Amino acid sequence: MNATPSSPGAAGLAAAGHLRVPIALDDRSYDIHIGRSLLTNASSWEGLPKARCAVIVSNETVAPLYLETVAARLRDHYAQVLSVVLPDGEQYKGWDAIERIASTLLEAAADRKTVLFALGGGVIGDMTGFAAAIYMRGVPFVQIPTTLLAQVDSSVGGKTAINHALGKNMLGAFYQPQRVIADLDTLRTLPDRELSAGLAEVIKYGPIADANFLAWLEANMDALRARDPSALAYAVQRSCEIKAWVVGQDERESGLRAILNFGHTFGHAIETGLGYGEWLHGEAVGCGMVMASDLSVRLGLMPPEFLARMTALIGRAGLPAKAPASIGVERFLNLMRVDKKAEDGEIRFVLIERLGQAVMRSAPDALVTDVIRQHSA
Amino acid sequence: MNATPSSPGAAGLAAAGHLRVPIALDDRSYDIHIGRSLLTNASSWEGLPKARCAVIVSNETVAPLYLETVAARLRDHYAQVLSVVLPDGEQYKGWDAIERIASTLLEAAADRKTVLFALGGGVIGDMTGFAAAIYMRGVPFVQIPTTLLAQVDSSVGGKTAINHALGKNMLGAFYQPQRVIADLDTLRTLPDRELSAGLAEVIKYGPIADANFLAWLEANMDALRARDPSALAYAVQRSCEIKAWVVGQDERESGLRAILNFGHTFGHAIETGLGYGEWLHGEAVGCGMVMASDLSVRLGLMPPEFLARMTALIGRAGLPAKAPASIGVERFLNLMRVDKKAEDGEIRFVLIERLGQAVMRSAPDALVTDVIRQHSA
Repeated sequence: MNATPSSPGAAGLAAAGHLRVPIALDDRSYDIHIGRSLLTNASSWEGLPKARCAVIVSNETVAPLYLETVAARLRDHYAQVLSVVLPDGEQYKGWDAIERIASTLLEAAADRKTVLFALGGGVIGDMTGFAAAIYMRGVPFVQIPTTLLAQVDSSVGGKTAINHALGKNMLGAFYQPQRVIADLDTLRTLPDRELSAGLAEVIKYGPIADANFLAWLEANMDALRARDPSALAYAVQRSCEIKAWVVGQDERESGLRAILNFGHTFGHAIETGLGYGEWLHGEAVGCGMVMASDLSVRLGLMPPEFLARMTALIGRAGLPAKAPASIGVERFLNLMRVDKKAEDGEIRFVLIERLGQAVMRSAPDALVTDVIRQHSA
Repeated sequence: MNATPSSPGAAGLAAAGHLRVPIALDDRSYDIHIGRSLLTNASSWEGLPKARCAVIVSNETVAPLYLETVAARLRDHYAQVLSVVLPDGEQYKGWDAIERIASTLLEAAADRKTVLFALGGGVIGDMTGFAAAIYMRGVPFVQIPTTLLAQVDSSVGGKTAINHALGKNMLGAFYQPQRVIADLDTLRTLPDRELSAGLAEVIKYGPIADANFLAWLEANMDALRARDPSALAYAVQRSCEIKAWVVGQDERESGLRAILNFGHTFGHAIETGLGYGEWLHGEAVGCGMVMASDLSVRLGLMPPEFLARMTALIGRAGLPAKAPASIGVERFLNLMRVDKKAEDGEIRFVLIERLGQAVMRSAPDALVTDVIRQHSA
């Protein structure tokens, strides 16, 4: 990645209070709204597609905190506001949830102008987006991410999916939201473990796209974990800018976009190997980035100091750096072979070839095996 | 519809032996191949996307007839050729089938270049297309329709879907195939009842788009039911030309395309009301066209002779003209209110305003009730 997008810097958002990062995708373009008090701010909800009916999809953790706030705002715009509250967790990201959303819509005779609102983390966003993509072959939807991970990654870019017992995110669609509303205040209620998981996806943007951002993260990791509002604001903003830049060039992941999966090939194998819900997605990605950094070093793309630097930062973010040895090396390898980036059974890794620049590469099984062994415990 | 596409006439296909009707959709364009002996003809299978793995999806009725023929041809192009054989019938067009296809793909570590082949009628085409649309967020697929209904309608145009207990085709995607291979020889093994069901979708194209074609159908209905090869060839060709013309202008059914649903609003209510699998889709559409013709007359759009003409032609095609009274008028109306064309709970009907020209209209419940009563027994 040679020409990263410019950023107004950490002062920009604090001054503006409410920032919009555009995602440029022709007739599927939309804005990410980033700021404080967005849920209660009337302007967050203006200009969305008109319809009789709006349906908020949330989970049992988030709904008690924010569902009524959002519903109250939506009642100004929609005659009927329904909600679907699903159980919380990656293990519920399957067809049953889609079926529940569809049944609620059909029981209410919701037509194909109905707007869905995803209120929650990445799991809620992925499921709601997929339900919107397929209900009557497509209805509009809005992302309201309430976790750091969803605000910096999963709610942006239009990847939607559910899991299959044999692989994560294996069934889904590229389907863009109408808007992303990232209210930074919702991060105050986030458990520490979820904050750390989100930081994994934030850290990712450094090595793949912006060496300066990696340095900024090293300097501000303590502030981020202490939930310093301006540090969090800048981390969300810069992450979204980089993601917008990548997705704007390669919406359907035919090339460049795959770099956003740095750490994910190893990470998905950990998640699937343990069973969904054991580790958080961000935790698996954190550990996966350590593994992918090591593989980059073993292939001679990066110096050994890079692995040390990444391992230290992942640790400071509160993320595990060792995968559970119980998965087993052979099974770990097989799980990676069904990764969506694999071709002809050959695993394709996102690796770092220079700070701020990623590359797609295959690697000898022996080397990959060494990496898995080295970072399992 | 003012400017219907021109046609080379009934002699065209007989002379050419193998016809290609293009569907023009920018980078999603493809050809419908129509002709005899296409399954065994090597040229049918050339130029498709390259991949390691091809997966044929078929059903228990069609697989014994044609699966091995197709698999043999595909082995010339793909290192691994797998198959999934599903139970036969509309009642199986649900998530379980998608789950079986996905499991077969994942167990074979099928990557996102894998090509799916839908070998069968409309149900197989809809399910395979939907599985292709969502597996790893989209893999290529090819339609090999073996029923008249699929050759003239469902395999062309990229509508894919599965049913929900509360409504037909409620979950799906617009997803175009790479090619449609319509081998007319496969119609020889089609049961009479399925032939009639297919004729319903053929008849549809007359009133909505081409008055001359309607007259041609009246003159050739006996030949069609006797499976006269040149009559069938022209019926498939002309139907595909009209469908290509409509879909090329409105891929995602924001307007014009809805005219292809003439008879379907009533028809879907019959199918859902009886439970999938009781009536064939084409049978319900045939009866639905009689109802929609009557509604066109009652609204003063068409003279009474039009209803008589449509009723006679539907009867000569071997299709039922009366819906089962057991559904009940109130339930019939409610089932139509969740039709995908409904807006704000108002049912939108495709009606005929001139021979060869359709229009979208709502209608007073009282009038619709009269129509349902008149054509139920």
